[in-house]
Amino acid sequence: MMKEFPLSKIYQLLEPGPVVLLSTARNGRANVMAMSWHMMVEFEPPLVACVVSSADHSFAALRATRECVIAIPALGLAPQVVKVGNASGRDIDKFEAFGLTPVPARRVTPPLVAECFANLECKVASTRLVNKYNLFILEVLKAWTDPTRKNPKTIHHHGYGKFVADGDTFKLKSRMR
Amino acid sequence: MMKEFPLSKIYQLLEPGPVVLLSTARNGRANVMAMSWHMMVEFEPPLVACVVSSADHSFAALRATRECVIAIPALGLAPQVVKVGNASGRDIDKFEAFGLTPVPARRVTPPLVAECFANLECKVASTRLVNKYNLFILEVLKAWTDPTRKNPKTIHHHGYGKFVADGDTFKLKSRMR
Repeated sequence: MMKEFPLSKIYQLLEPGPVVLLSTARNGRANVMAMSWHMMVEFEPPLVACVVSSADHSFAALRATRECVIAIPALGLAPQVVKVGNASGRDIDKFEAFGLTPVPARRVTPPLVAECFANLECKVASTRLVNKYNLFILEVLKAWTDPTRKNPKTIHHHGYGKFVADGDTFKLKSRMR
Repeated sequence: MMKEFPLSKIYQLLEPGPVVLLSTARNGRANVMAMSWHMMVEFEPPLVACVVSSADHSFAALRATRECVIAIPALGLAPQVVKVGNASGRDIDKFEAFGLTPVPARRVTPPLVAECFANLECKVASTRLVNKYNLFILEVLKAWTDPTRKNPKTIHHHGYGKFVADGDTFKLKSRMR
């Protein structure tokens, strides 16, 4: 179950630095990888930068099709996220292998991931730094969140399988959007 | 007290998406801003991308001097971090106003921030996306951590003064560096 999410608030999902899944599709075959190297670039229209290694199977699909979905998993999905990160789409269908459910997106061909609490449909906006740094600039075209998931805890990768889950939430009087 | 930190492990500090402080210096005056839009770009030599709005006072200093320090604050420093984010270096000396201690860096002119548990001395490696996206590629030249701070909890910004602190740590068998 996914509810549309305002583009003006995308940054509230990505700014905290969660491990995400990147869904791509090429030649009728969907694939998914785990990714931590991403950041917001602009609030609205929401732009996101990400680095996808040219060694990753997803790289060629992203460069060729210029489309992807960024899916944000909560803590409970961590075991599958790690399995996704350990395997390559060259060898297996990772959706099937790890019990992830592809759901058709509205604006792009790559599927949403049903088990994730947020899904961002993206197109590539700039490839100027792809050759040098494997860095893509994406524009988020449409976003979905699961309204039944209140305050999902995301996970943050600290290297070599060490993860930290979100802890306490607190408010401070900030003027920062 | 700062101990040198291996460049090969920088990503373990930034990949989790903490709110950081960005220190710059221009015409003999140091300044510091709060920043959440950053990501790793390469493991080694460590490259980091960040977005600094051209509306921020730090933007001109970073573009002109091509140097900065990324300082990572732990949870206890959150009130000062928010104050840094709410003020502009155009108006005040933020180090002095908010009780932050500048410490000379080794390779760059901008100071380290003594109260932060990690400090990364950086030079600008690419400005190709600065005009279009305010996006800088930085190379980390030298890094320091405070060895007396064990497992510092970082903070993650969710917009408008809502923050989430690091929670539980867990390990999963990941092949992902």
